[in-house]
Amino acid sequence: MKKIPILLMGIGGVGRQLLRHIVSCRIIHYNQRLRLSVVGVCDSKSMVVAPDVYRSELDDEFLLQICEVKSSGSSLETLSDGGQCQIYSSKEMASKAIDIAASYRRMATGLTFIDCSASCNTIPLLRKVVELECCVVLANKQPLSSSLEDYDKLISHPRLIRHESTVGAGLPVISSINRMLSSGDAIQRIIGSLSGTLGYVMSEVEVGKPFSDVVNVAKRLGYTEPDPRDDLSGLDVARKALILARLLGHRISLDNIKVESLYPIEMGPDLMTVEEFLAKGLPLIDREIRRRIEKASSNGNVLRYVCLIDKSRCEVGIQELPKDSPLGRLKGSDNVLEIYSRCYSEQPLVIQGAGAGNDTTAAGVLADIIDMQDMFI
Amino acid sequence: MKKIPILLMGIGGVGRQLLRHIVSCRIIHYNQRLRLSVVGVCDSKSMVVAPDVYRSELDDEFLLQICEVKSSGSSLETLSDGGQCQIYSSKEMASKAIDIAASYRRMATGLTFIDCSASCNTIPLLRKVVELECCVVLANKQPLSSSLEDYDKLISHPRLIRHESTVGAGLPVISSINRMLSSGDAIQRIIGSLSGTLGYVMSEVEVGKPFSDVVNVAKRLGYTEPDPRDDLSGLDVARKALILARLLGHRISLDNIKVESLYPIEMGPDLMTVEEFLAKGLPLIDREIRRRIEKASSNGNVLRYVCLIDKSRCEVGIQELPKDSPLGRLKGSDNVLEIYSRCYSEQPLVIQGAGAGNDTTAAGVLADIIDMQDMFI
Repeated sequence: MKKIPILLMGIGGVGRQLLRHIVSCRIIHYNQRLRLSVVGVCDSKSMVVAPDVYRSELDDEFLLQICEVKSSGSSLETLSDGGQCQIYSSKEMASKAIDIAASYRRMATGLTFIDCSASCNTIPLLRKVVELECCVVLANKQPLSSSLEDYDKLISHPRLIRHESTVGAGLPVISSINRMLSSGDAIQRIIGSLSGTLGYVMSEVEVGKPFSDVVNVAKRLGYTEPDPRDDLSGLDVARKALILARLLGHRISLDNIKVESLYPIEMGPDLMTVEEFLAKGLPLIDREIRRRIEKASSNGNVLRYVCLIDKSRCEVGIQELPKDSPLGRLKGSDNVLEIYSRCYSEQPLVIQGAGAGNDTTAAGVLADIIDMQDMFI
Repeated sequence: MKKIPILLMGIGGVGRQLLRHIVSCRIIHYNQRLRLSVVGVCDSKSMVVAPDVYRSELDDEFLLQICEVKSSGSSLETLSDGGQCQIYSSKEMASKAIDIAASYRRMATGLTFIDCSASCNTIPLLRKVVELECCVVLANKQPLSSSLEDYDKLISHPRLIRHESTVGAGLPVISSINRMLSSGDAIQRIIGSLSGTLGYVMSEVEVGKPFSDVVNVAKRLGYTEPDPRDDLSGLDVARKALILARLLGHRISLDNIKVESLYPIEMGPDLMTVEEFLAKGLPLIDREIRRRIEKASSNGNVLRYVCLIDKSRCEVGIQELPKDSPLGRLKGSDNVLEIYSRCYSEQPLVIQGAGAGNDTTAAGVLADIIDMQDMFI
């Protein structure tokens, strides 16, 4: 039985779902002669670690207890398992995590760091564990969409890092692009809808609903961030576009990406509350969006909020696209990616499906972990 | 620099394209600190092997010479490189290949067998090298679509075998399904159009052209096998469906698959020549196909030749499908696969693109080889 020791950072929706997946897949992995062994879990404030981090693990009951505690809004510190695990505070935890990684390295089995947080605070630790040749799996977009220096450092051992769930949740986007690149199938162009929220918004306004109504409904349905401007700014899509562009070899940063925001600067979070924006700001945008839709429609086209990456460009914003293309046909919150390359030159390779949700995102992380099994003894 | 020693079986269109890809990707792989080292190549009649199979390789010039010789229709035996390589006859080559594999195993570096043939004659050799824990990459559908006993043997070390190009050429079908399975995302249903030829035929007859005309044109364009009945029988699609079904755990063989042939048994190859079939047989089928199209159309549907796999079924044949589904919208020779699972339950995961062609098929094989690099020292 091959053991993959795991330290999980981030126990929000995705992290908790990952722990549940790990527990519920025990038999599948047993049949693959694999044991996913969670030796530590941390949120931003504390870290719990198995009593003997090299010979024991956090057991399934305890992992599910962690999920419950975090779901209820409590902190990890409230966990009491009768002294069965060690708890470290935010001050100690980074150095303790590095200690554990270093010891695992000496034992030649390796430790895998999983980042399911949404924070850039994990970057310094990730940089150090990459140096220790630990495996790293990211759902967190921040580490690979920050400075180029961080990026280069994190991918310095390319086989030791996976990050499928940073783009399109569990959709096989990164793994498929990596396959194309390694087989010399040069990618000429990627165009994709990588925000379920903006995909939903653009396909709803297309059928005649006012932009402001659609955004308000999307917020009520829980499709948007608490402040919908976090979606409408396009910044989240830009981070995904940056990760794809860097994968294709672009030496760029977030600042180099042309990002179209769906609200004007004077409606920004510093100048308007969420409530004001929803009630008074948004309706002022309706007419312009309507005008653009009608213009596109008169050309037989539709509008989509997409990322567009080719040899020289990396842009994020509204594009007029043929009604009868995979992107043009997109309805609801699916993600879709069209990849043009030497092998897929006339018709693109298309990958489409749910690109959000804790279940799918966590499944992508788990697939990445399993995919790295050959690194372990 | 990590060395991946390769023995290639089958130097038809796909095998030759693979050799050309390997040569043209030298720099890409060098940057990945990889060296793909072709130590032997064989067709059905003979095998050429590097002079010292453990310390030397067939050099790029010689690999391209092999491609030229085979393209011109000559046999490998005509190769003369001034005694630089060893040539073995069909009688000797299997045992020699096993010798080489066994020696590589003792050296703990491993040898990778690539099967780009279309023959079932490679199965006995593949079974033996799997026992020696060699890596195996298949573009050949035969080995995994023959007996269950062969199948079980060949996948007895699941991490040591890859076969992306057996279904949908280089489309990331197998790798994506494997990711879903390993992350516990149970697959409920797969429905796909896996024959570019039949995809083309079905979308052409849909717009009103007679079936017989469409098949004749497809043959003239080189879209079909020399005898189009090899496509129209559905057997090739059935082999792909079988490979997918077995991946999902179905314990079935080709005999258990319900396959709809697009020509009646009395027009079979034993009873009619190709010319008779094209000129006199096919037109007799036109009316029935027309009737079925009209019936589907009256329901707002279209006909597609698909494979359908779920918990209890594995079928291949014509299905009536909604016009407005990924399969219904399919035009031309693209392959498309809709995968329904826990994570993709309402909207499927869709993978679409060119599913045939030597370039794409060979790229899929090459990606599989690179993907196995962690098995090598």
